[in-house]
Amino acid sequence: MSKELTSRAVDYSQWYNDLVIKGGLADYSAVRGCMVIKPYGYALWENMRDELDRMFKETGHVNAYFPLFIPKSLFEAEEKNAEGFAKECAIVTHYRLKTDPENKGKLIVDPDAKLEEELIVRPTSEAIIWNTYKGWIQSYRDLPLLINQWANVVRWEMRTRLFLRTAEFLWQEGHTAHATKAEAIEETERMLEVYADFVENYMALPVIRGIKSANERFAGAEETYCIEAMMQDGKALQAGTSHFLGQNFAKAFDVQFMTKDNIQEYVWATSWGVSTRLIGALIMAHSDDQGLIMPPKIAPVQVVIIPIYKGDTGKVLMDEKIAEIIKSLKEKGISVKFDNSDHARPGWKFAEYELKGVPVRIAIGMRDIENNVAEVARRDTKEKKSYSLDGLAENIRILLDDIQQNLFQKAVIFKNENTREADSWEEFTGMLDAGGFISAHWDGTAETEEKIKELTKATIRCIPLNNKQEEGKCIYTKQRSTQRVIFARAY
Amino acid sequence: MSKELTSRAVDYSQWYNDLVIKGGLADYSAVRGCMVIKPYGYALWENMRDELDRMFKETGHVNAYFPLFIPKSLFEAEEKNAEGFAKECAIVTHYRLKTDPENKGKLIVDPDAKLEEELIVRPTSEAIIWNTYKGWIQSYRDLPLLINQWANVVRWEMRTRLFLRTAEFLWQEGHTAHATKAEAIEETERMLEVYADFVENYMALPVIRGIKSANERFAGAEETYCIEAMMQDGKALQAGTSHFLGQNFAKAFDVQFMTKDNIQEYVWATSWGVSTRLIGALIMAHSDDQGLIMPPKIAPVQVVIIPIYKGDTGKVLMDEKIAEIIKSLKEKGISVKFDNSDHARPGWKFAEYELKGVPVRIAIGMRDIENNVAEVARRDTKEKKSYSLDGLAENIRILLDDIQQNLFQKAVIFKNENTREADSWEEFTGMLDAGGFISAHWDGTAETEEKIKELTKATIRCIPLNNKQEEGKCIYTKQRSTQRVIFARAY
Repeated sequence: MSKELTSRAVDYSQWYNDLVIKGGLADYSAVRGCMVIKPYGYALWENMRDELDRMFKETGHVNAYFPLFIPKSLFEAEEKNAEGFAKECAIVTHYRLKTDPENKGKLIVDPDAKLEEELIVRPTSEAIIWNTYKGWIQSYRDLPLLINQWANVVRWEMRTRLFLRTAEFLWQEGHTAHATKAEAIEETERMLEVYADFVENYMALPVIRGIKSANERFAGAEETYCIEAMMQDGKALQAGTSHFLGQNFAKAFDVQFMTKDNIQEYVWATSWGVSTRLIGALIMAHSDDQGLIMPPKIAPVQVVIIPIYKGDTGKVLMDEKIAEIIKSLKEKGISVKFDNSDHARPGWKFAEYELKGVPVRIAIGMRDIENNVAEVARRDTKEKKSYSLDGLAENIRILLDDIQQNLFQKAVIFKNENTREADSWEEFTGMLDAGGFISAHWDGTAETEEKIKELTKATIRCIPLNNKQEEGKCIYTKQRSTQRVIFARAY
Repeated sequence: MSKELTSRAVDYSQWYNDLVIKGGLADYSAVRGCMVIKPYGYALWENMRDELDRMFKETGHVNAYFPLFIPKSLFEAEEKNAEGFAKECAIVTHYRLKTDPENKGKLIVDPDAKLEEELIVRPTSEAIIWNTYKGWIQSYRDLPLLINQWANVVRWEMRTRLFLRTAEFLWQEGHTAHATKAEAIEETERMLEVYADFVENYMALPVIRGIKSANERFAGAEETYCIEAMMQDGKALQAGTSHFLGQNFAKAFDVQFMTKDNIQEYVWATSWGVSTRLIGALIMAHSDDQGLIMPPKIAPVQVVIIPIYKGDTGKVLMDEKIAEIIKSLKEKGISVKFDNSDHARPGWKFAEYELKGVPVRIAIGMRDIENNVAEVARRDTKEKKSYSLDGLAENIRILLDDIQQNLFQKAVIFKNENTREADSWEEFTGMLDAGGFISAHWDGTAETEEKIKELTKATIRCIPLNNKQEEGKCIYTKQRSTQRVIFARAY
C-alpha cells in the first residue's frame, strides 16, 4: 500500500479522516474549522453541482448571487431565524488594517475604521434575499420567483470535522416566492424529491424522505422536509432539507403582492439546500478499508488505465493501442485517466487508485496486446476479469452502470438490515448500540423527544412521508401514538 | 419603449447604471458597496465562467477551494502584499451574537466571543494558498502545481459602481508553483494570452497586451502583465492581470522543494485573475442607447422568438411551426427563448429584448407562416430581413457568427481610431479630453508617472508587449526615452 489507512473496525472516525486526507479530497487549513477542498475533492463537488444545477434548471429555477454580508438589522428581522443562528455567526466589525506603530511590519485593526453597523457573514441567506425580493415583487405576475444560489456560508462550529461540519462550507440555497400556500408546499415537496432523486440515483445512497419534528425544524420554518441516509456505522446523516417557510419572511420584510383580484397579500416562501456535507455522506456510505469508492455517475475519474511496460519493448505499439482505447471511451462520454508516469510501479498505482475510489481500472501489458485483451478490475467488488479489446468501451459503459446499481443495492440492503422496530423502552435502548434506524412510537411532544435525546443521544430523524397510521404507545411515556417515527444517533 | 434609458450623450455614467439595472443584470443591495447579481446577469457570468474554466482546464489547470478567511498573522507575512490590501479589508473580530438585554428582539455582538486572532475576509488568496502549498510541495515531482479557484472576494471600496468596483465581487484566481523562473514567466504569459483570447474572441473586445509600470504593479508581484480594453467613452479598463510573483511568497511562507540534483530551492510563483468586472467592460464596450448588446458567444439567450397572434386564429398551427423552429435551433446548439406571454404586446417585447441585448429576434405571424418566412432582426445593426423557414436554423447560426465578428470589428475600428501618438506635452494634454489611448514617450521614472497622473488623471495603462524600440523624449520631462507607453484615463 502506498498510504496506510486505519481500518473501519479499529477506529471508524480515524478511518474517515484518513480517507479524506489520504484520498486527496480535502486538507486542514490554518483557519480554525475551515478546510481546503483539494482538486480531487473539488472535481467531485463540480460533478455533483453540475447534476444538481441541471435538475434545478429543469424544474424552472434560475441562479443569482446575493451579498456575502448581512447587516445586523436585517439579520435580526425574522426573530426565530436570527435566534437560531445568532450563536454561530462570524461578525465583521472593521474595514481597515493599519501598520502597528509598536511592531514594524505587523498590522493591527484600525480602531478608526469601525463599522457603524456590524455585518454578519451569511450563515444562510433568507434575510438578505427577502429584503431584496421586497423590491422585485409587486404583482402576481412577478410570481413564482424561483431562484437558486451557489455560495459559501459560515457557521461557527465548535467541534468541526472535514466535510461533515466545517465553519465555512459550500452549498446551494434555493429561495422561492409563491402566490399561494399550496403552491409553496408543492415546491417544498418537489425540491425534496429532486434531492432524493440525486442522492439515490447519482450518489447511490438510499434515503428516507420525511418531515422533521418541531425541535429539529429549521429556524424560521413552518415545516422542514428532509432526506436521511444511513452511514456504515449505523448513524444517520441528514442529506438535504427543504423548508416551507409560510409567510414568516414575507411578514418580517413586508413582501406583499397584488393578487389577480386586486388584493394585497403576503407572499409564501420556501428555501432548500444541500452542501459539501454530502461528500462526507458519500465517503462514509460506500468506502472500505482500501479506500474511497466513487459511484460512477459522479466520479471525477471513471476509468484509470495503467500500462505495464517491460522496459521499452513494444512501448510505441502499446501507447498506440491505449490511445485508441482512450478515444473510444471518451466517445462514450466516459472520463478516463491514463497514468503512464514512470516514478511509480504498477502495484503502487493500483493501490493509489483504489484509495481514490476510481470505479474501473484497466491494466494492460504487451502480452495482453498480443492477445487482444485487457485486465479490467472493478473497485466495488474488486473482481478482476479479462476483457476483449473488441467492443471494450461499450462493455466498460455497461460495467459502470452495473457498479452504480450494485453500490445502490448494497446500500439499500444495508439500510433495510439496519432498520428495526422497537415496541418498548427496553427494546429501544437494547437496539441503540447496534446502530441503524429505529422505528418506534412517540407521543408527539417536544419534551419526550428531548428526554429521549438526553438519555440515549438518539434523535428523531424524521416522520416519514406517507407514513402508515398505526395505533401504538410511546416507547418512553407509553402515551397514545398514531404513528411510528425514525430514531437514530446522527452526524 | 418599456423602460426609458438615459442616452450616452446626455449622461454616460447614468446610461451605464440604467443598463445594469433596467437590463436586469444587477441591483443595489442593502449592504454598502455590495450588489445583487440578478438571474440574467448571473447567466451571463455562468457562460463567461464556463468558457474560461474550459480554457484553464485545457491548459492543464485544476480547480480547488481555499478558506474565505485569512488569519492576520498569515495575511501580513508577505509584507508588500499585506500593505497593498491592508486599507481595504473586511475584518472578522467576533464569532457570536447574543440577545440585547436592553432591547428585546434585538441582537448585539457578544463581547465574550472575541477572536484571539482577527480574520481577514480574503481580498485575494496568495497568503492562505501559499501557506497551504508549503504542506503540498516537497520535491520537484510535486511541481508544477497548477490550481485555480472560483470564489468571492472582498475589497472595501469607498466609491463603488455596479460590476466595475464593488466591495464584494466574484472572480477566479489562479495560483501556480514552478521549479524555475523561466517556467513561471512562461505560465504568466500563457495565462495573459488565455485572457486576451477570451476577451477578444468571446467578449468581442480587442485588447492591448502589456506590462504594468512599477507603480501599477500588483502588491507582492515582480511583474504584472495586463490586458487593457477601451470603453465607448474612450476610457481604459483593465480586463485581466497575470502576475509573475518571483519567489516572494515562497520566501514569506518558506516553500522550498528538492530539485532533481538534491538541492533545496524556493519555488517560483504566478497568480492571475479576472472578475465580474468584465461584465462592466462588456456593457460599456458594446451597448447603445436602446440597451445592451450581447456578443452571441456568451449571450444568456441567443435568439428570442416573438409570435404575432391575431386573436386565436391559426394559433395552433403557428405554435406547431414555432416548436419546429425551436427544435432545429437547439439542435445547432443555439439557445432560444420563446416569449408567448400574453401580458405584453409584441412592440413592448421588441423593446424589452433590445434592452436585454439578445443578438437575434425572430418575429413570426400567420401571414409569415403562409409565406414560409420569418422576420429576423439583428440587435447589433438593427437590420431586419425576411428569412425563409427552410434552412432557417443554419442561416441563424451564420448570422450569429456574423454578429460576433461585426461587434469585434467595430470595437477594433473604434480602438484604432481612438489611439493617438503624442510627441509633446501640448499634444498630450490636447488629446486628453477626446479620450482614448495616447501612445507617448516616458522617461521610465515613477516620479514622472505620478506627476502626469496628478496633472491629468491619465495613468500608464501598460508598456505593450513586443513594443517597438524607438528613440524619443519624455513628453513631460523631455528626458531620453527608448519606447512609447500607453496612457489613458481609466476605470
